[in-house]
Amino acid sequence: MKNFIGIDFGGTNIKIGCFDENLKILAKTSIPTYADKGPEASVSAIAQACERLLADTGLDKADTAYAGIGLPGPVNLSQGLLVSPPNLPLFHGCPIKKMLSQSLGVPVVMENDANAAAWAEYVCGAAEDVDDLVFITLGTGIGGGIVTAGKLVHGNTDAAGELGHIIIYPDGRKCGCGQMGCTEAYASASSTARRANELLAEEAPSSLQEIYKAKGEVSCKDVYDHAAKGDEFAQCITAGTAKVLALLCVNIMNFMDPQKIVFAGGMIAAGEQLLEAVKEYFVKYAWPGRAETVEIMFATLGEDAGIIGNASLAIKEYKEKA
Amino acid sequence: MKNFIGIDFGGTNIKIGCFDENLKILAKTSIPTYADKGPEASVSAIAQACERLLADTGLDKADTAYAGIGLPGPVNLSQGLLVSPPNLPLFHGCPIKKMLSQSLGVPVVMENDANAAAWAEYVCGAAEDVDDLVFITLGTGIGGGIVTAGKLVHGNTDAAGELGHIIIYPDGRKCGCGQMGCTEAYASASSTARRANELLAEEAPSSLQEIYKAKGEVSCKDVYDHAAKGDEFAQCITAGTAKVLALLCVNIMNFMDPQKIVFAGGMIAAGEQLLEAVKEYFVKYAWPGRAETVEIMFATLGEDAGIIGNASLAIKEYKEKA
Repeated sequence: MKNFIGIDFGGTNIKIGCFDENLKILAKTSIPTYADKGPEASVSAIAQACERLLADTGLDKADTAYAGIGLPGPVNLSQGLLVSPPNLPLFHGCPIKKMLSQSLGVPVVMENDANAAAWAEYVCGAAEDVDDLVFITLGTGIGGGIVTAGKLVHGNTDAAGELGHIIIYPDGRKCGCGQMGCTEAYASASSTARRANELLAEEAPSSLQEIYKAKGEVSCKDVYDHAAKGDEFAQCITAGTAKVLALLCVNIMNFMDPQKIVFAGGMIAAGEQLLEAVKEYFVKYAWPGRAETVEIMFATLGEDAGIIGNASLAIKEYKEKA
Repeated sequence: MKNFIGIDFGGTNIKIGCFDENLKILAKTSIPTYADKGPEASVSAIAQACERLLADTGLDKADTAYAGIGLPGPVNLSQGLLVSPPNLPLFHGCPIKKMLSQSLGVPVVMENDANAAAWAEYVCGAAEDVDDLVFITLGTGIGGGIVTAGKLVHGNTDAAGELGHIIIYPDGRKCGCGQMGCTEAYASASSTARRANELLAEEAPSSLQEIYKAKGEVSCKDVYDHAAKGDEFAQCITAGTAKVLALLCVNIMNFMDPQKIVFAGGMIAAGEQLLEAVKEYFVKYAWPGRAETVEIMFATLGEDAGIIGNASLAIKEYKEKA
């Protein structure tokens, strides 16, 4: 039986999974990215890891039919290039698709990392029962992936779904991208922490002051923990995050008319207090009569979404070309 | 040779065109909508007008292969229904597709009106050279249509592309849809006039005061005319409109990554002073390095876009089913 490799290429680690053609996971592993050693070291490490993974599970390398890899943007999918990933300076312009295909000896399909995770949630996760979904990752930054009528949206330069850079407050906080007032400048995990830290530095009264004074800063998790325990300052910060995410959801609804909006990423560990607040603001700010056409929820595949999505895209491409 | 009918069903008039299979227009006409008489009168008038149109141009009714009709939203495309068009209360829930197909004796394809116009600009208008475009109509309201990878985006409830209801200023001006701060609440032709009239009522110093005092209100065209002649108040109003449209374009860029954003509708009669101002604000507010991937321009098909788009969709469906 044929097997398929799904690779989730991150700034720190590379996750690799081996799947059968029904997208059943057979084995998985994780290796360092070797961001400081450059593309050849990374690709060679991926190939070795794949070989070990297949050997350890008694699979035949000759049966590997296709691999899929998801990479941090910006990417050039038609040319198979990593363009200029901010955290991987040695990889700028790297023809990763061709290098990996030569190294693995199989054809490779390439995707933006958030799109691959969105695809996984569409194929077998939170949104497996719908054809139109928008997927949002909440971490250090905010990324997105869009599936409409069962197809991933790429756009003209493979940069569709940059949902962290939808402007919520014109002329607002400066974002890392250079725009002002982006979603990401308010509602990512790091921006949530930053908004708290700025005010804690100005002596905002809060149970977070103890951590702030001891460590010089609080984390997004600290803010949500203290909000859950009733600290009003922390609740004010998390409400600001929820409002921005809800306004993003209103814009997503009016843009794409999806059946589901799915949040993923480290910040969803904040749980129901985050999700319920986003839903409440969404109902407050969304077109009456349309709000109920959209379900806002958390992703279900966790950290495996990347390898699952990329393997699924590899299987799809293999079957389409067969 | 087969002929195809394109119908643009508006609140006041219905435009009808007859086309050959290469989308060459053979004849066109316009009839009243009979909004006050209801669906049967309208459909019957469309059928009679089609017959006259074909007879007048020596075409054989038996050669009509397919018709396409574009209608004001919300629509239910899979069921062929007009859902609840605000300006057509007698048509709520009307099974227009089936009625028209029976009356014309040919199969009918149905589309949202803004989508049909977007499709026309994609097929043979301003965006005929690209695969990813976003189309925006500026009139009493603001509508939109999205083409990505050569396909119209519909969404889960056929309500994708409601670009007038992308929120630009949270908690801002109340919009007709019930949301606060929508694009349409600032930058449609009627909102542009309304923003001027509100301040003229408060004695804002402006060359527009003469018209305001004589007529009790100024029009959007008045505002642009006086802005062009150097009236600072009018320029302030049109700058506000351009800024909101530019912020919408930034969000469109980060959502869909289109090659072109195409403005249409009555308000583009304001011409270069509108387009250049939108472009200037766009460069100011858009992600540096990405702004140049998007071209902002005016539509080229004018009032025929609706009949062309619907005829094109009819031809497409005919060929796909052949």
